[in-house]
Amino acid sequence: MISTMELTAHMEEVENLLENKDYHRLKESLTSHPAETAELINQLAPEHRTLIFRLLSKDTAVEVFEHVDGAVQSEILSGFLDEKVLGIVDEMSPDDRARLIDELPASVVMMLRKRMTPEEWHSTAVLLGYNDNTAGRIMTPEFVDLRDHMTVRDALKRIRRIGDDSETIYYLYVIDETRHLLGAISLRKVVLSEMDTMIRDIMDTDLIKVSTDDDQEDVARVTQDYDFLAVPVVDKENRLVGIVTVDDIIDVIEEEATEDILKGSGVEVAEKGYFESSVMNNFTKRIGWMMLLLVLNTLTGSIILSQKLLLEGMVVLSAFIPILIGSGGNAGAQSSTVVIRGLAIGEIDVESAMRIILREFVLGISIGLLLGLAATLWAFWLQGDWTVSFVVGLSFILVITIATTIGTFLPFLVKRMGFDPALIATPLITTTIDVTALLIYFMIAGYLLG
Amino acid sequence: MISTMELTAHMEEVENLLENKDYHRLKESLTSHPAETAELINQLAPEHRTLIFRLLSKDTAVEVFEHVDGAVQSEILSGFLDEKVLGIVDEMSPDDRARLIDELPASVVMMLRKRMTPEEWHSTAVLLGYNDNTAGRIMTPEFVDLRDHMTVRDALKRIRRIGDDSETIYYLYVIDETRHLLGAISLRKVVLSEMDTMIRDIMDTDLIKVSTDDDQEDVARVTQDYDFLAVPVVDKENRLVGIVTVDDIIDVIEEEATEDILKGSGVEVAEKGYFESSVMNNFTKRIGWMMLLLVLNTLTGSIILSQKLLLEGMVVLSAFIPILIGSGGNAGAQSSTVVIRGLAIGEIDVESAMRIILREFVLGISIGLLLGLAATLWAFWLQGDWTVSFVVGLSFILVITIATTIGTFLPFLVKRMGFDPALIATPLITTTIDVTALLIYFMIAGYLLG
Repeated sequence: MISTMELTAHMEEVENLLENKDYHRLKESLTSHPAETAELINQLAPEHRTLIFRLLSKDTAVEVFEHVDGAVQSEILSGFLDEKVLGIVDEMSPDDRARLIDELPASVVMMLRKRMTPEEWHSTAVLLGYNDNTAGRIMTPEFVDLRDHMTVRDALKRIRRIGDDSETIYYLYVIDETRHLLGAISLRKVVLSEMDTMIRDIMDTDLIKVSTDDDQEDVARVTQDYDFLAVPVVDKENRLVGIVTVDDIIDVIEEEATEDILKGSGVEVAEKGYFESSVMNNFTKRIGWMMLLLVLNTLTGSIILSQKLLLEGMVVLSAFIPILIGSGGNAGAQSSTVVIRGLAIGEIDVESAMRIILREFVLGISIGLLLGLAATLWAFWLQGDWTVSFVVGLSFILVITIATTIGTFLPFLVKRMGFDPALIATPLITTTIDVTALLIYFMIAGYLLG
Repeated sequence: MISTMELTAHMEEVENLLENKDYHRLKESLTSHPAETAELINQLAPEHRTLIFRLLSKDTAVEVFEHVDGAVQSEILSGFLDEKVLGIVDEMSPDDRARLIDELPASVVMMLRKRMTPEEWHSTAVLLGYNDNTAGRIMTPEFVDLRDHMTVRDALKRIRRIGDDSETIYYLYVIDETRHLLGAISLRKVVLSEMDTMIRDIMDTDLIKVSTDDDQEDVARVTQDYDFLAVPVVDKENRLVGIVTVDDIIDVIEEEATEDILKGSGVEVAEKGYFESSVMNNFTKRIGWMMLLLVLNTLTGSIILSQKLLLEGMVVLSAFIPILIGSGGNAGAQSSTVVIRGLAIGEIDVESAMRIILREFVLGISIGLLLGLAATLWAFWLQGDWTVSFVVGLSFILVITIATTIGTFLPFLVKRMGFDPALIATPLITTTIDVTALLIYFMIAGYLLG
């Protein structure tokens, strides 16, 4: 049995650490026997109970929860909606959160689920321990669970009883006494089966499921590939904690497309969506890329200045710079966009990179030849010198071919390095091509005219 | 009664017109009494029957179908899968098709539905009279229909009987004897109701439905807004002909996002998807934009050449052209992307144009001031003349402010004119800004240095 003196000492330590917001040492100090920790929580001021409970490891949390008084259990659960507790966890860095806050036991998840509205559930996600853009964050706890020893008749009875509060009753999930996911079955199959059929005989055991920390994009991909209306979400111990329904998947798909589109033009995506953010907020979302591109672009100035002598002798050369870098940029952007989107929706993969680079190379040469011819004729019409026109035309062919190749190659490279190819914004491609184009142009001009 | 001579004369006329592929005059010639037309079709060679039948107006078609022999009815239906007939209709221009081919009577649609596999149904869409990217094209004929005088028990019995062949049984549609859509009801509601409840008492009559010729994007929007799993599709007479299910909606959303993304970089979208097309096919999808942009871009050459004197005196000015037009283009692309995507997903509308243009204007000035300052300092470091640096900095401020404003304004303008803002490809924005930027730059340079 724990002595009152020890308990008082521990209480004081805990209260001190809470005051100093030293949650890492606080977590370390909570290693006594679950019964002792339960006693500590019993004695603690109500507003601290939930936070302390969340700092426990999952295994300890299960036992501690069983040991605390019934009233305290209820207070711990209510504390999940406490703005102050939520605020503390919200302010932590994602790294801190991952280290401090363990997965919540499925039994507690289920109890919380019954106390909360869907809105409350979603606003509590951070304290439940689910990260942004994960299955845990978008899942709903409102589903119908069945047991494998039920008949179709039992199942229908249960659906009639609790179905009203469920997000969907079109997929039903079969679990054991400790909430492990055993199988799933569609309402369709239930309705189309005889009343006395056992659920265990018709349920699907080879089922697709996702984890709470799976990326929402992967959940969307699974749903789409299998034409699902809902996907079950399990915790690390394969206990069912929620489902993701197809209407939320649709929102994810649209949200991710928007994110890719904005990123593609060098706009960082605000967490709460672009259109609700303040002007200042949007300023910070755009200035980063603009500054980076400005710095990269200073190379173009240096390259041109290094050709001062050549340009002073033949100022007409500068007239073709914008059209050359513009066309190169457009060609590169076309290729990179096609590849980035293809990778995003899974139409192409890194394995086929060589084939696609080759294909775009052929495309680039074809477009380059045609545009080069047009540019040569136009350059001659504009300034009447065949050599200069030839420099322009040759540069067009080379620049456009190289631009499509760079535009195709870079997204594959980024993907191979393990990043999201959508990071390769079009402006980055065009700026890279600006620099490359100038180098090619002045090399050819220097050789033929210098 | 029709005389044999008249019939023979009409037959000859029809066969002549068929041979000459003069389908417009053929359609005009089919105006006799339905009984006579039925007699004509009875006499016609089997391979011509379906085509002639499809050239009839909807009202006539209903009556003619009832008048022809049973065997001929069956042949007309089989003819919908005839490659030759499909080929003829496929080759028509969309305009011709709209003029020649009327909506199919719902009764015939239902008979066809029962004879065809889903794949056959989809491959026949053009002959059924449904245009690309419409609800008619993506709908499935496999649904469960109920009558309003059924009880929940009857409904469940019917679902058990025909549910196996349905795409979804989660929404059930209530129709009258002539297939008019009266209401809809979810399987959820059926399962949660008492067995003796009348369907008419629990069905939803204030229901959301779409027409066969509604754009698939609008169907997706409706499904998304109401969190539907399926939407009923009716013909012009409110007769139920199919449903669109949520798994197809997901594909539509992804397809449309891909289309917008590719268009945004000036890549036309191939009907069968980018990645299945040949290199030649992709060449034609890209060269159009590239050529258009090249022509627009020739303006930059003319502007620079018109400043030959200024540039000969101060060649260093040309060093800042790429960075200035590049930064302007990036700023404009950021704004246009944000607005185009916002319009596409309905987060903003044309009514809020003024507010958003103002907001982007403020953003543009802010970014312009910061980048202008950076550019001034860099320009001085590069070439040591404060006046030139000042010209560069001032141009930056003006160009970036104007670029964000153009980038914001153009998509709204295009939308107001009734077109898809996604047509405003980023390269078009950047090219427009290239030209504008050069005009501003040389105006300021001419004023301060000329």
